[in-house]
Amino acid sequence: MKKIEFFRFAAVALGLLCVIPAQSQQPEEAPLIRSIFNEALTSYEAYHNLEQLCKRTAGRICGRPEAAEAVELTRQIMVGMKLDSVWLQPIMVKSWDRGEKEVARIVSGKFGTITVPSCALGWAIGTGDPGLSAKVIEIKSLQELKSKSKSEIQGKIVFFNQPFKQTNLGTFSSYGEAVWQRTSGPSEAGKMGAIGCVIRSMSIEIDDFPHTGITHYDDGVKPIPAIAISTRAAETLSQYLAEDKELNFFFRTTCLEGPDVPSFNVIGELRGTEAPNEIITVGGHLDAWDIAEGAHDDGGGCIQSVEVLRLFQKAGIRPKHTIRAVMFMDEEVAQRGGQKYASEALAKGEKHIAALESDRGVFQPKAMAITGNAEQMKKYATWQPLFDPYDIKLISGGGGADVGPLKKLYPDIIFMGIIPEDQRYFKLHHATTDTFEQVDRREMQMGAAGMAVLIYLYDKFGL
Amino acid sequence: MKKIEFFRFAAVALGLLCVIPAQSQQPEEAPLIRSIFNEALTSYEAYHNLEQLCKRTAGRICGRPEAAEAVELTRQIMVGMKLDSVWLQPIMVKSWDRGEKEVARIVSGKFGTITVPSCALGWAIGTGDPGLSAKVIEIKSLQELKSKSKSEIQGKIVFFNQPFKQTNLGTFSSYGEAVWQRTSGPSEAGKMGAIGCVIRSMSIEIDDFPHTGITHYDDGVKPIPAIAISTRAAETLSQYLAEDKELNFFFRTTCLEGPDVPSFNVIGELRGTEAPNEIITVGGHLDAWDIAEGAHDDGGGCIQSVEVLRLFQKAGIRPKHTIRAVMFMDEEVAQRGGQKYASEALAKGEKHIAALESDRGVFQPKAMAITGNAEQMKKYATWQPLFDPYDIKLISGGGGADVGPLKKLYPDIIFMGIIPEDQRYFKLHHATTDTFEQVDRREMQMGAAGMAVLIYLYDKFGL
Repeated sequence: MKKIEFFRFAAVALGLLCVIPAQSQQPEEAPLIRSIFNEALTSYEAYHNLEQLCKRTAGRICGRPEAAEAVELTRQIMVGMKLDSVWLQPIMVKSWDRGEKEVARIVSGKFGTITVPSCALGWAIGTGDPGLSAKVIEIKSLQELKSKSKSEIQGKIVFFNQPFKQTNLGTFSSYGEAVWQRTSGPSEAGKMGAIGCVIRSMSIEIDDFPHTGITHYDDGVKPIPAIAISTRAAETLSQYLAEDKELNFFFRTTCLEGPDVPSFNVIGELRGTEAPNEIITVGGHLDAWDIAEGAHDDGGGCIQSVEVLRLFQKAGIRPKHTIRAVMFMDEEVAQRGGQKYASEALAKGEKHIAALESDRGVFQPKAMAITGNAEQMKKYATWQPLFDPYDIKLISGGGGADVGPLKKLYPDIIFMGIIPEDQRYFKLHHATTDTFEQVDRREMQMGAAGMAVLIYLYDKFGL
Repeated sequence: MKKIEFFRFAAVALGLLCVIPAQSQQPEEAPLIRSIFNEALTSYEAYHNLEQLCKRTAGRICGRPEAAEAVELTRQIMVGMKLDSVWLQPIMVKSWDRGEKEVARIVSGKFGTITVPSCALGWAIGTGDPGLSAKVIEIKSLQELKSKSKSEIQGKIVFFNQPFKQTNLGTFSSYGEAVWQRTSGPSEAGKMGAIGCVIRSMSIEIDDFPHTGITHYDDGVKPIPAIAISTRAAETLSQYLAEDKELNFFFRTTCLEGPDVPSFNVIGELRGTEAPNEIITVGGHLDAWDIAEGAHDDGGGCIQSVEVLRLFQKAGIRPKHTIRAVMFMDEEVAQRGGQKYASEALAKGEKHIAALESDRGVFQPKAMAITGNAEQMKKYATWQPLFDPYDIKLISGGGGADVGPLKKLYPDIIFMGIIPEDQRYFKLHHATTDTFEQVDRREMQMGAAGMAVLIYLYDKFGL
């Protein structure tokens, strides 16, 4: 879009205008849209709800009592809003307990013994009471691991230490490139005969906070205990290894998987006046890692979704289609909430026409996104002037882990998305640093308003 | 720009291109610009320097020992960079001491006695040891004050309680509308016979932090003691007053103005290879309020300015014109640093061709700005494609309190500016909350890179 951007600016600067056939831009919608943003910016309700969710149900990973509290809290919030329906959708979720606080130490003849900040990866097996101690082999890429012989890995702890690439402008790219270490690293290391796995935390910055997150053991592979250490600890361990290849690493984790337990998606809706069986979903995931308040990931996305319904109510909008806010359970582990939501939709004969998932943090919104065919994108583009005053671009994109399963059942569904600023996100993601205090009310509310407006326009004009 | 924005998007969506005479876009500069951003994003030097500045010289308002430490610290940083010159420019600045921790209380027969968070306004007079107690009159606009009779104000404390307008999308507008309460409120209240003044903190959110900042007493007006209370306390006081007009407010401040003392602007430069006497200034202000670390206001702007020089060095750029980083002293109080910088420039026969001031926080950069005539803006617009990959718009604007005095002496000077995201700024501004921890390294560095690139293009191609 670079060339066109230049033209745009040049046109302004030169006082020239391009002649392009005019399209319907719905300029008459501008005052209503402004009133939606005004309501969002002046209201404290969503922000207070987020504070309750963060402070009262911190650590609400699926299967935990905190998750059950979060289900009840958000159900009550929606009941209090006098929506047309509020209900719980039962699912069975996995459970896991972190056990006692993890201990991790570098034990070096040269540098001494240094305790480092650590946490078990989600659904990793534990070392058990005595802990685990072994020599360490540092690996910076999956390719490097594959290039090693089994004898080099056998009996050791594999230390995955591929940092986030700082030169990516978007931090989700850096996460995408590095996250294999957490999801697949322990399994891959286990295949090569490693007895334990230590990963550099999936953080964009050098700091002292370990970041957790799910790890998956491949079928048929003997699982090995796995922890994340803080990025600063990873730098230290790497430096020490360079000078002392014989150092040992010790860690102790007592985490344990439990049985599946019942849980719920939490759902509330405004029923459509013209096509109540045609559904637009807006949602986030209610579960959050057990060490975090889950403010940006993804309490904020849930609260924004509820706020969309409140903004509709406040603006006096009765939607044509049913607008449904969904707090999905279990995005972080096995996405069973999203799967259940889709399969039950099909079973009930619902028609799902669009779905917007907010799960990239609730920072200042930069863009709204949709997936659509050429004709749909063309119509969508005519809405850009309505978003210009709020500095929100309309781009292509959208979807997510929770609404994804709808696509298989409703191939024509339009996915939507919200793209916030992302420089700060991966300092907080899956760590104790993801707290309510890191959320700015106005930024979150501008996102909620952008979501409400996109859904409003789609509901009214279609694509 | 809305209509054009629509055309731009429509052009993309429809596959149409406008025909506008092509301008030089310097696409050959893109790789160097990318290398500048890459260096900024991978370096921790500026961020560590900001940490030092915040943690070692917190409270560096002009005239304080912390300000002298900040002068020495930033001088040493620039000396360590092996610039072509580093020097101190002497000025005399005002001094003031906050004295003992302020005390402020609502004393109500109905609600009891409530202590509220408070701080004296900068350069306010104190109440002295016994403190001050009086009935309160709440005022929500300057007009409302003027509509009162002197007898209604006489002997009372005027409580200015005009909140920030939440529906402004840009928070600097809200500050601009409300800040008269702090700068002129005490003086105006004094003219009407008030004996003290309490203002609602200049904060965008409802919280418990008082925000300080300069107040000015008009000549010939008897100064009265003045404090800010937190926004939440202001809400409380307003509610209590509605039900108990007879309540008293007590506050005690022991602040005191001192004599003028010597201080310095801190200056470092890379000498121009072709026109060394033609100067491009990039700067921020080194002083910060005595209750704050001054991370966003404006340690970050100072450090970004130094970083511009480092980015030039790292990229191997020898500028044609002299590029000078200036840490201005005394922006917050009387702007003597900026005045001295301009007057000495004239006395030395320097020619100042451009100046960029960073003093809006160091959040994610949204835009770079310049002031220029139509011809200059036209050429400037051709650089937009070079900023597109970094999501930075080129807009009109620029200047600031410290570089402002240059304009009178060099009418053709081009002012530049950097416009970061601003939703969070006025939660921190002039308060204890403006700490290093609130600065994101990557956001600050993207700003520094944007500044470096704009200055690089101007130095090389002119406008």
